[in-house]
Amino acid sequence: MTRPPRPAEFDIIRRYFAPLAAGVDAALGLVDDAAVIALPDGHRQVITTDTLIEGVHFFAADPPDQIARKMLRVNLSDIAAMGATPTACLLAISLAEHCDEAWIAAFAGGLGDDLRRFAVALVGGDTTATPGPLTLTLTALGVVPAGAEIRRSTAVAGDHVYVSGTIGDAALGLRVLEGRLVIGDPAARAMLVERYRLPEPRTGLGPLLRGIASAMADVSDGLIADLGHIAETSGVGAVIEAARVPWSPAARAAVAADPALAASLLAGGDDYELVFTAPPERDAAIAAAATAAAVPVSAIGRIVAGSGVTVLDALGRPLALGAAGYQHR
Amino acid sequence: MTRPPRPAEFDIIRRYFAPLAAGVDAALGLVDDAAVIALPDGHRQVITTDTLIEGVHFFAADPPDQIARKMLRVNLSDIAAMGATPTACLLAISLAEHCDEAWIAAFAGGLGDDLRRFAVALVGGDTTATPGPLTLTLTALGVVPAGAEIRRSTAVAGDHVYVSGTIGDAALGLRVLEGRLVIGDPAARAMLVERYRLPEPRTGLGPLLRGIASAMADVSDGLIADLGHIAETSGVGAVIEAARVPWSPAARAAVAADPALAASLLAGGDDYELVFTAPPERDAAIAAAATAAAVPVSAIGRIVAGSGVTVLDALGRPLALGAAGYQHR
Repeated sequence: MTRPPRPAEFDIIRRYFAPLAAGVDAALGLVDDAAVIALPDGHRQVITTDTLIEGVHFFAADPPDQIARKMLRVNLSDIAAMGATPTACLLAISLAEHCDEAWIAAFAGGLGDDLRRFAVALVGGDTTATPGPLTLTLTALGVVPAGAEIRRSTAVAGDHVYVSGTIGDAALGLRVLEGRLVIGDPAARAMLVERYRLPEPRTGLGPLLRGIASAMADVSDGLIADLGHIAETSGVGAVIEAARVPWSPAARAAVAADPALAASLLAGGDDYELVFTAPPERDAAIAAAATAAAVPVSAIGRIVAGSGVTVLDALGRPLALGAAGYQHR
Repeated sequence: MTRPPRPAEFDIIRRYFAPLAAGVDAALGLVDDAAVIALPDGHRQVITTDTLIEGVHFFAADPPDQIARKMLRVNLSDIAAMGATPTACLLAISLAEHCDEAWIAAFAGGLGDDLRRFAVALVGGDTTATPGPLTLTLTALGVVPAGAEIRRSTAVAGDHVYVSGTIGDAALGLRVLEGRLVIGDPAARAMLVERYRLPEPRTGLGPLLRGIASAMADVSDGLIADLGHIAETSGVGAVIEAARVPWSPAARAAVAADPALAASLLAGGDDYELVFTAPPERDAAIAAAATAAAVPVSAIGRIVAGSGVTVLDALGRPLALGAAGYQHR
């Protein structure tokens, strides 16, 4: 089989990525050595970078537009988790040999869709060819009023613990894709897979929690792990009640069919929801923010003196999460 | 042979990369979802990203500390080429299977040395494992007073063309490493290889050219190609005199031994010098900046109406650069 030739890197940028940066002042048309970004006075630049590798973080056969959109979204989730508003991004793409022009066009199309959807500007990047797997590094930028960023390390004992959306759907979707779980209901199966393939970063909710949340992270490694990071960096412990963790109807049905799944859902990653803490008196403000962002928020536990994350069952007994659970070190 | 086990990603960050970010406020200890960077009022954020792939951009057997330092330096060169002062960076490192703990320690050591040398803070990143080649994406940040950045697209006919340092040494060094060139003099050979392996980004000179240079780029793709980018984006042509292009004594000796090398040196990349344009009346200011930065600067030609880059020989005749030369499209 002969593969259609791929244009040179300079032409790929010109044809597929430069148009995504059209009209973006900071990008300088992607022809300069670097991008130049203006920040409003009194604001700070928030910046994060994440790498996705074919065969490690996504499947080689995944639709290229979905790969592009997930790559952008997981980084926007990090920006939102700081309470910042995403503004811009840079894309370093190392194209594998199988990435032909049709692949690149579809990838750029998906990226363009989501750049518009989240009002984020592509301001720079680097396009290379790799003999290895397709490797994507996205650097996302956001803006936050000076001092208003929401860190992980600032939770205090007495705070309540909250989480947005529902937990565990992405872990179930991954199991379905891996053939390790059968979901009979086609709509439920599609929803779970979609939650894995195309997370919804909480870019609306995150900034609304400035001045309200005491600490925040996004749920990328799993609820227990990410809440564990908050606890560890804050020097506190966290206690959550399993019965208050929000499940989607599809996840609830899956757990009903196989109760052993519950622990893996608490530990499973890729939800890209926000987990955060706040003093109890901010409960009404949190409800208002959730309404304004049209994202459900659930109170699931509390911050305590101590360390680690403890999950309680309906009778208040600590659950033994075993290997699936986060082991605090 | 059994390979010593590599620590988990979280431990790699904690042991080797978090210490490099120690004392850097913006990094938030590398424990948060994103870094937060303060900019002085009235300044803009300059940002660039570059990917280096083992076997493509460097040799697998290169010393890890040199790989780290070159990675940082090529990005700092991009920041300097905007007339900006480098301030911070993020590192996305995808570790190949052969990168054991000793490799990581040496890499982090080299990176730390150069972070201190160039007064640049590591503020974030991502550490992953790849089944493919070691892949490094560094994102570098700099700061520039609003409106003072030096772009590529702003050269005008009548400007003179300047270049810092010497040209072609890195291309010769690469030939030596590839076994395609024999340099008898050990000191000359070592200098050429060093210029390829460890470029010296012109971070001192770049910011001193604000308000002086009309357009600037760094010489990464080769003098003719990068001056060609300035010409193309500015809608002008460039004429350079081959005899005025600065050569190191080692390069001069190599060209004397094989005159055919001259064209490849003009086209060869990886010098990471600055090529820039300025109105003729700024000549004295440029000399002062060169003295202040302790970097030689040479006037090598002029900007003209038209397009493309023309190289003239000592008699003023256009040189036919052939396949080695940049073909303006």
